[in-house]
Amino acid sequence: MLEQLKEEVLKANKLLSSEHLAILTWGNVSGFDPEKGLVVIKGSGVEYNIMESQHLTVLDLGGNVVEGECNPSTDLDTHLEIYRNFKNVRGIVHTHSTYATVWAQMGRAIPCYGTTHADYFKGDIPCTRKITKEEIGRDYEKNTGKVIVETFCGLDPDVMRAVLVRCHGPFVWGNSALDALHNAVVLENVAKMAFLTDGRVPGQEPLVDDELLKKHYNRKFGADAYYGQSGETK
Amino acid sequence: MLEQLKEEVLKANKLLSSEHLAILTWGNVSGFDPEKGLVVIKGSGVEYNIMESQHLTVLDLGGNVVEGECNPSTDLDTHLEIYRNFKNVRGIVHTHSTYATVWAQMGRAIPCYGTTHADYFKGDIPCTRKITKEEIGRDYEKNTGKVIVETFCGLDPDVMRAVLVRCHGPFVWGNSALDALHNAVVLENVAKMAFLTDGRVPGQEPLVDDELLKKHYNRKFGADAYYGQSGETK
Amino acid sequence: MLEQLKEEVLKANKLLSSEHLAILTWGNVSGFDPEKGLVVIKGSGVEYNIMESQHLTVLDLGGNVVEGECNPSTDLDTHLEIYRNFKNVRGIVHTHSTYATVWAQMGRAIPCYGTTHADYFKGDIPCTRKITKEEIGRDYEKNTGKVIVETFCGLDPDVMRAVLVRCHGPFVWGNSALDALHNAVVLENVAKMAFLTDGRVPGQEPLVDDELLKKHYNRKFGADAYYGQSGETK
Amino acid sequence: MLEQLKEEVLKANKLLSSEHLAILTWGNVSGFDPEKGLVVIKGSGVEYNIMESQHLTVLDLGGNVVEGECNPSTDLDTHLEIYRNFKNVRGIVHTHSTYATVWAQMGRAIPCYGTTHADYFKGDIPCTRKITKEEIGRDYEKNTGKVIVETFCGLDPDVMRAVLVRCHGPFVWGNSALDALHNAVVLENVAKMAFLTDGRVPGQEPLVDDELLKKHYNRKFGADAYYGQSGETK
Repeated sequence: MLEQLKEEVLKANKLLSSEHLAILTWGNVSGFDPEKGLVVIKGSGVEYNIMESQHLTVLDLGGNVVEGECNPSTDLDTHLEIYRNFKNVRGIVHTHSTYATVWAQMGRAIPCYGTTHADYFKGDIPCTRKITKEEIGRDYEKNTGKVIVETFCGLDPDVMRAVLVRCHGPFVWGNSALDALHNAVVLENVAKMAFLTDGRVPGQEPLVDDELLKKHYNRKFGADAYYGQSGETK
Repeated sequence: MLEQLKEEVLKANKLLSSEHLAILTWGNVSGFDPEKGLVVIKGSGVEYNIMESQHLTVLDLGGNVVEGECNPSTDLDTHLEIYRNFKNVRGIVHTHSTYATVWAQMGRAIPCYGTTHADYFKGDIPCTRKITKEEIGRDYEKNTGKVIVETFCGLDPDVMRAVLVRCHGPFVWGNSALDALHNAVVLENVAKMAFLTDGRVPGQEPLVDDELLKKHYNRKFGADAYYGQSGETK
Repeated sequence: MLEQLKEEVLKANKLLSSEHLAILTWGNVSGFDPEKGLVVIKGSGVEYNIMESQHLTVLDLGGNVVEGECNPSTDLDTHLEIYRNFKNVRGIVHTHSTYATVWAQMGRAIPCYGTTHADYFKGDIPCTRKITKEEIGRDYEKNTGKVIVETFCGLDPDVMRAVLVRCHGPFVWGNSALDALHNAVVLENVAKMAFLTDGRVPGQEPLVDDELLKKHYNRKFGADAYYGQSGETK
Repeated sequence: MLEQLKEEVLKANKLLSSEHLAILTWGNVSGFDPEKGLVVIKGSGVEYNIMESQHLTVLDLGGNVVEGECNPSTDLDTHLEIYRNFKNVRGIVHTHSTYATVWAQMGRAIPCYGTTHADYFKGDIPCTRKITKEEIGRDYEKNTGKVIVETFCGLDPDVMRAVLVRCHGPFVWGNSALDALHNAVVLENVAKMAFLTDGRVPGQEPLVDDELLKKHYNRKFGADAYYGQSGETK
């Protein structure tokens, strides 16, 4: 079942390694089929180069296993919380990619310092608040998801497709598992350039005005987008 | 038509990826044939590894399509403005390469900190002023080109073959598309070394004197250049 | 003799190069067989790409050669001191990997800035005190081991499997030579992210609370670990 | 003539590229035969991947061409000045490798922050003084060599095999062209780790004491060296 989705999730997990977003087993990708209401996710602790379809687990949004022999990723409950709350998400990527993780470790949102950022993310990329001792003690991974959702109060997950979990690392989403992977590649590069820029701008102010931010975001993703070939929005 | 130019522009676009100047679709190269008055440019949003000759568009300097099925790069009007104003330019490269983009995000010209810089760029590599709300609102890409041209008031584009567009990234040119690509590789490396040097020089002053700057530039590009083999200037 | 251990130690030494932990001959791996009481270690100054089984030396814990033509690594006596004192260690890796070495050169322990660190190291990764003139003058490598052991007064080498030798570089251990290698890969990545984070956290305080540290460490290595597939702890 | 030396110089030049010490044509290697009194050096502006034996030039120490069609490297006169003054040098490498060049651009000697440095360089790696307007105006490359020699007043080029030319980049030497190449690889890595350490040591003092410096240098290169296999000193 869900052969096409599994194939895509498998491919996206392997790309974590080849796109240098994750070493060892430091990342996981899931995909969601909204018609069946089912999630496909990487098995916990499986290395990317030996991963095959059998290392994927299929679950419903309540976390009940429908198919698969492997324990799902320990971050499963964070993925599920995102799917349950952000209605258009079809794929999620979690990594410990270097620069995105450094911003998470600094506990800071990534300011919009340039059009590379604005081309994909409509504003600062948020960082969650500190998780409490109580939230760690019980249902830690689910609570991580709840803190992400709380962070998006007033933010639209359809135009801001990434978040930094404080002291942990990024979660990134998209229209599909591969689209989420694409956005995770963008995030890491934007995070690196922002890290290098930060603290070195004369006057210390982010330089991208709101008009420039909107112009770049909208020429790729707005109603009158003109980036790319016809029929594409990216 | 323009088969040789197309082949070179295609090759230069693919080199964006293999020379690590652009990931995804984050860069574009064009070439110009002065006799025919035509420009060849990359199609918008096409990935480098699948790009073929058919993904190139041929246009006149007024932006009228002469050949090709693809929408040209969204940055087309910036390229055209440069070709219209800088008479000896035969190729243009635009990228979001990491360190050149970081300088653009800092909104700063790249100071000449060493002979590696002086070997190719005769002085500080300029950064444009902030683009205004009005310039963003209408003909944004063309206005980006106009701001570049304005920046070169008093600067010779034949000896300073690169500019940083503030908050955006570099545009680099040359005698051909491949020469522009070569200069873009140099720019990124010079930008990285300048970034690492900047703020750490005792006394905070750039160290290259005007004599050393001219000596190095001229031994490669001056009237009595002696770098390379006979008949070459580079 | 010890064919299986030799094979693993050989593989781990070659991985030093392919995992970018050591260039030239800047690292060495050993393995320990507790039943026979013997150590297998890389020969001094042998390059990884030409290394074969014959370049390994077998010694007892007193440093007496049992088999092998090569002089053992100059760091042998440091390895032996660790095996003699940390009873569960079965493999040791020493490198000059860039960021771990930079922390050693700064003479600082690596603070726990994130869950990537907490997933593997239960607390700050310690740095040894300065070695004295007397300790350098006689039995330098053995004294390096003694200073490591002294650093672990009050620290459990079973949950803190790495140390930075001040002004020198990291020693990392594990359940086997390959496990030690795995931990050395983790250390270098954690060291890089901590280096980039350090000094840039608003308020300058490490952000990982003790609860989060324990949660992450224990979900991988604790009594009720649930990371990975059944039967694995990692 | 000098077929073996040419082969080695050719190999060392190609290694500049594969060891990531030079992009484009940003480096050159020469070798010296003391019996014949002849130098073999790279042709100016030749790219490494197309370089063959015919792109090498043979000259005497006065700079007279003995064999070869190519113009020698523009840095030839700096190489010759070094060979004329440092009697045991048999190979010289000049690069613009990133971190060594950044130290040259900062105009600073590289302090000895760790044993990686001490293993190869017995003390701080010096940086030349600023070259004067007069020295640039006439015989620039020869004067660059003279300033290097002046910098070694009181320094032994047999135990300090590298120098940073201020605002330019490193020159490194050794017992052969390949040994010089080896030392250039070491220099770049030591320069990177020192750059990252510098300014971040609590108290701001280099941490390596003289005893530790001598211990490490001498265990590799001293009279009683014990690093490596018998008959080797490295």
